[in-house]
Amino acid sequence: MNGTMKCIVKTAAGPGNLELQTRPIPSPGPGEVLAKVHLAAICGTDIHIKNWAEFAQKRMNPPSIIGHEFCGDIVEAGEGVDPSRIGQLISAETHIACHKCALCMDGKAHLCVNTLGLGVHINGCFAEYVVLPSENAMVCSPDVSEQNNAILEPLGTVVQAATKVAAAGKTVAVTGCGPMGLMAVAVMKKMGARKVICSEINAYRAGAAMKMGADLVIDPSKSDVCAEMRRQCGGLGPDIVLECSGSQGAIQAAAEYISAGGEWVQIALPSREIPLNFTNVFYRGVNMYGVSGREMFHTWKVMTGLLDAGLDCTGCISHVLPMEQFAEGFALMESGQGLKVLLKP
Amino acid sequence: MNGTMKCIVKTAAGPGNLELQTRPIPSPGPGEVLAKVHLAAICGTDIHIKNWAEFAQKRMNPPSIIGHEFCGDIVEAGEGVDPSRIGQLISAETHIACHKCALCMDGKAHLCVNTLGLGVHINGCFAEYVVLPSENAMVCSPDVSEQNNAILEPLGTVVQAATKVAAAGKTVAVTGCGPMGLMAVAVMKKMGARKVICSEINAYRAGAAMKMGADLVIDPSKSDVCAEMRRQCGGLGPDIVLECSGSQGAIQAAAEYISAGGEWVQIALPSREIPLNFTNVFYRGVNMYGVSGREMFHTWKVMTGLLDAGLDCTGCISHVLPMEQFAEGFALMESGQGLKVLLKP
Amino acid sequence: MNGTMKCIVKTAAGPGNLELQTRPIPSPGPGEVLAKVHLAAICGTDIHIKNWAEFAQKRMNPPSIIGHEFCGDIVEAGEGVDPSRIGQLISAETHIACHKCALCMDGKAHLCVNTLGLGVHINGCFAEYVVLPSENAMVCSPDVSEQNNAILEPLGTVVQAATKVAAAGKTVAVTGCGPMGLMAVAVMKKMGARKVICSEINAYRAGAAMKMGADLVIDPSKSDVCAEMRRQCGGLGPDIVLECSGSQGAIQAAAEYISAGGEWVQIALPSREIPLNFTNVFYRGVNMYGVSGREMFHTWKVMTGLLDAGLDCTGCISHVLPMEQFAEGFALMESGQGLKVLLKP
Amino acid sequence: MNGTMKCIVKTAAGPGNLELQTRPIPSPGPGEVLAKVHLAAICGTDIHIKNWAEFAQKRMNPPSIIGHEFCGDIVEAGEGVDPSRIGQLISAETHIACHKCALCMDGKAHLCVNTLGLGVHINGCFAEYVVLPSENAMVCSPDVSEQNNAILEPLGTVVQAATKVAAAGKTVAVTGCGPMGLMAVAVMKKMGARKVICSEINAYRAGAAMKMGADLVIDPSKSDVCAEMRRQCGGLGPDIVLECSGSQGAIQAAAEYISAGGEWVQIALPSREIPLNFTNVFYRGVNMYGVSGREMFHTWKVMTGLLDAGLDCTGCISHVLPMEQFAEGFALMESGQGLKVLLKP
Repeated sequence: MNGTMKCIVKTAAGPGNLELQTRPIPSPGPGEVLAKVHLAAICGTDIHIKNWAEFAQKRMNPPSIIGHEFCGDIVEAGEGVDPSRIGQLISAETHIACHKCALCMDGKAHLCVNTLGLGVHINGCFAEYVVLPSENAMVCSPDVSEQNNAILEPLGTVVQAATKVAAAGKTVAVTGCGPMGLMAVAVMKKMGARKVICSEINAYRAGAAMKMGADLVIDPSKSDVCAEMRRQCGGLGPDIVLECSGSQGAIQAAAEYISAGGEWVQIALPSREIPLNFTNVFYRGVNMYGVSGREMFHTWKVMTGLLDAGLDCTGCISHVLPMEQFAEGFALMESGQGLKVLLKP
Repeated sequence: MNGTMKCIVKTAAGPGNLELQTRPIPSPGPGEVLAKVHLAAICGTDIHIKNWAEFAQKRMNPPSIIGHEFCGDIVEAGEGVDPSRIGQLISAETHIACHKCALCMDGKAHLCVNTLGLGVHINGCFAEYVVLPSENAMVCSPDVSEQNNAILEPLGTVVQAATKVAAAGKTVAVTGCGPMGLMAVAVMKKMGARKVICSEINAYRAGAAMKMGADLVIDPSKSDVCAEMRRQCGGLGPDIVLECSGSQGAIQAAAEYISAGGEWVQIALPSREIPLNFTNVFYRGVNMYGVSGREMFHTWKVMTGLLDAGLDCTGCISHVLPMEQFAEGFALMESGQGLKVLLKP
Repeated sequence: MNGTMKCIVKTAAGPGNLELQTRPIPSPGPGEVLAKVHLAAICGTDIHIKNWAEFAQKRMNPPSIIGHEFCGDIVEAGEGVDPSRIGQLISAETHIACHKCALCMDGKAHLCVNTLGLGVHINGCFAEYVVLPSENAMVCSPDVSEQNNAILEPLGTVVQAATKVAAAGKTVAVTGCGPMGLMAVAVMKKMGARKVICSEINAYRAGAAMKMGADLVIDPSKSDVCAEMRRQCGGLGPDIVLECSGSQGAIQAAAEYISAGGEWVQIALPSREIPLNFTNVFYRGVNMYGVSGREMFHTWKVMTGLLDAGLDCTGCISHVLPMEQFAEGFALMESGQGLKVLLKP
Repeated sequence: MNGTMKCIVKTAAGPGNLELQTRPIPSPGPGEVLAKVHLAAICGTDIHIKNWAEFAQKRMNPPSIIGHEFCGDIVEAGEGVDPSRIGQLISAETHIACHKCALCMDGKAHLCVNTLGLGVHINGCFAEYVVLPSENAMVCSPDVSEQNNAILEPLGTVVQAATKVAAAGKTVAVTGCGPMGLMAVAVMKKMGARKVICSEINAYRAGAAMKMGADLVIDPSKSDVCAEMRRQCGGLGPDIVLECSGSQGAIQAAAEYISAGGEWVQIALPSREIPLNFTNVFYRGVNMYGVSGREMFHTWKVMTGLLDAGLDCTGCISHVLPMEQFAEGFALMESGQGLKVLLKP
């Protein structure tokens, strides 16, 4: 496809260095597709890239177009790709697996040791057009709202976490009500959780959690979160913890209040080591599960099914801005005054 | 407690022989409680007892009060039972386990080889009062309707079946829309199933299934159930089959249309051997799970949680009759003109 | 590679029609490798092909080289294949998956609806050389004997079955002591099964089972297999059944004697429907699992590890013949006078 | 039974205060049995009791007979206990569950919130005779050596840990080669682990690990344990970690070297919080499982089966002393100059 496109480029190493540029529309190589971006979403990773956190330093080689969460439609198919894919509504599985390492060969491509990230290692979707491997272009339902389709990538991580536990009929604590926590609330309720109790200090986020279906949000700065969690969850504490805060305080409290025999899924990624009382956690028979991305592509099947059954996560979206206003979007998310912020090219 | 009570007694071996009688109110022995019955429900097992099917011949020793599904409240506590239990709203776990056999010792008391059944081996709940082991008197929520509390025992079997599969986001076939199938529809929807498609010939039951939340009911006498199931379930057939019919035709069709890699839970109990195409089922990687009663008492925890989260199964109840009209209740269920029929003492 | 090679060809539809021929050595296409065959093995499927059973009629389009179980080494790498693979000792994952159907996309490539079989849909390994996709060329250990490496494909099916159950410390029944049953005995013992009790009528196979480590082989034609299985397995019957016979009698007996709460893996593929007492099996909480091929490629990891830990299955091999004597090899297996028969090109 | 017996008594709160005394032989109450102790074993818990660690301060009320690991035979049956139990060879499930709390009711009696410990809350087995609930008197096999039967309680904790993972064909790291780690080596090998690699500084313990079947013991003070573990385990690190050291260094190293997607069972109980790199562990998809005691009584079934299949853990026993020399036994274990020390009454 001829022509140029707007895009947001990390122009150089170091903090900041994000710029709206005009570049030629790229062409899909063999096995790739070109998609027109309808709506993209800012992720915490994008903020790490802006701030040039260690995560970004290790993986990026600027200048490079950033962004990985989006929905769009396929407008061109590279060599070897079935041309009937053109016109499909898609979102991206943003982890590009090698399919050759020992983990890929063990059916764990989501943990591939050679993973490349869209918008990290290769050019991303904060642009009018984006190229990605056909395998990673996941078909979306037109019956799902475009806003919801734009956030399937982070929602998929939450859904992967949810598939590690049997939430139906159980009490669940969600720690932290940023976008991930908010989606976790909606998913847990959709799966038949008995109660979803959140912990969150920010009143704006707490309000959003209640709108997403939380039964209660506890403010740990105002009440004894351990005592209150136990009281809400039948005395022994919640059966399940979905840890979405990454905060040492929230993690240590949850390690205290989770029920013996409980299950913990760690979704957030703390930036520092957390002192953990191993004996209290593990001698009480608690299990802790890690998640990374989405199982390829089992998680997409489950997520698609949940959306088809009526799951709606748009409540975690606070703003939709023109792509030109990306700086405002980043600021809203960093300040905690926004939830998920979407960018329209 | 002094006085007499109405009760329904199987007076002697052989078909029929059910009689409304007056008997002294029984006294709870050590470790037992006496409960006042609020509402009881007729089960397929009760019909087998009436008709003196092989199941009943092997287990019963008339004369004996029948009935096992009910809710009520504890009015007397036997020796060694905490008297604070008096006044608790309860339903019964009707399988009384020995806690000593190899299966009980292996944490599988629901499969106890010495199980005694309330209303089968010992006097049951089609009566104003019933005695049962304190351990088997399961606390009910007063926030759940009395009609729903009266059917927790069969609902628990459905919930046990549901806990064997991960239904969230998956397509589910429910074969047969008698009371068990109807509850299965409600439970699957509550757990976030993508779609619940039923097969049922009886139009009355099909209508009830739609009211319980089914996405579609296929009448196998009018359409090609295999083709239609596949069409409804993404081409490959349903991910999950909950077999609630016991019918050879329904089982053989489901064995044909279930997706490769699918999961099957057998809830109904066919009265005869069913010719099964092992190669088609198992070489396609299908798993088939058996269920019996309710896991002690994990299933009750999950069920209680689902009810607390809003599960409502009263749509499977068609009639509530005075206990005196039990014969009419049995006839309604046997004829297929009723669904679940409740009896009020 | 220039030159010609010996190979065994199914020359035309219909029973028989197997012929030793000379053909040009094939060339690997893009993504493929050419392997020199060291040792191949005759499978039940090859016998179905010879006899032109329904299985073969549905899938084959003669003339075509048959055979799929083998070990060899890579001698040529097609376009896009890492040339450093040349020289690797390999066996074949014989199921070639499409990686695009809904089951492949769900992480179940072993159940791919478009599977192509080596030696079935495409030319196979009863030849001096064979071409296969690089992905399907599984690296073997030179520390494992060549005979054992030649049978990794069927062993993998047994290992997949074994990974469905937790055999350590459990009692296991293996029904049928053909090559699959014999390998099942060795795998179960290696995994720490408490006891492995077989049922087998053929005294020659029974003897082989004892050599493979079985604790006892029951001859159902001479003793009451249900009573004896229960007696050997603590009264309640075996915890696990690995069904390797496909025989109606063996299946119906195992359905009777398996412990309540037991687990059954169906490995054999009965050629007809089997009347199954659903109520006895499933109301006793038994689960039945299907297997097909090997999980891609998790099963290969587990199998490789077991071999590395000392698993040896060569006891199921009765004859190693020159490829020219293939007819004798087929006859030995069909008559039950041989176990696994290997062919050396 | 009349008469007196030798026993070891914690005479008062505070460090030390262990004394050999003579007391009347106790009588079993209702539901209890009296057992003659053949052989007992010193546990880390006993050392905590001696040293009056927080664990002991919270639970004990001296004076009280200590000790909980033993084998013996039943010599008297209390009221309500089947007298045919007299003469049975037994060991003790030392956790006495309430069977009434929410965890017991959920099938998790091993996590009972009201657990009483033999030799902790009630009189124990460092005595010629001990009383325990009949339910907790677990039948032992006379085919297993008495020394092995004396350590079934700690072995059961290791077996519970082992049942959380599918070790067959996998690489396993065992961190710490005290008695628990040594038993873990033997259990993993018996279950078909590909390789068992240990980390241990103490050369005496390292030697014992090799005798128990370890493939290699790495001394972290002498080599780079992360690099070496990865090298031994196919580059990615071990699939499974059984953490038996409780040491911060060992835990942090294992968190580094465990394979992505790996499984970790925490057996040791660190006495302090451990700083854990959550992101490195959980974002790599690692799961961490807690264990406490033995599942009631599923773990005993598996353990019994493993022993019947030839598991032998006596290699972790370094000394058998007369009970009078208990002080020497405690000193041997505390100094690391002994492994498991047994006491003979």
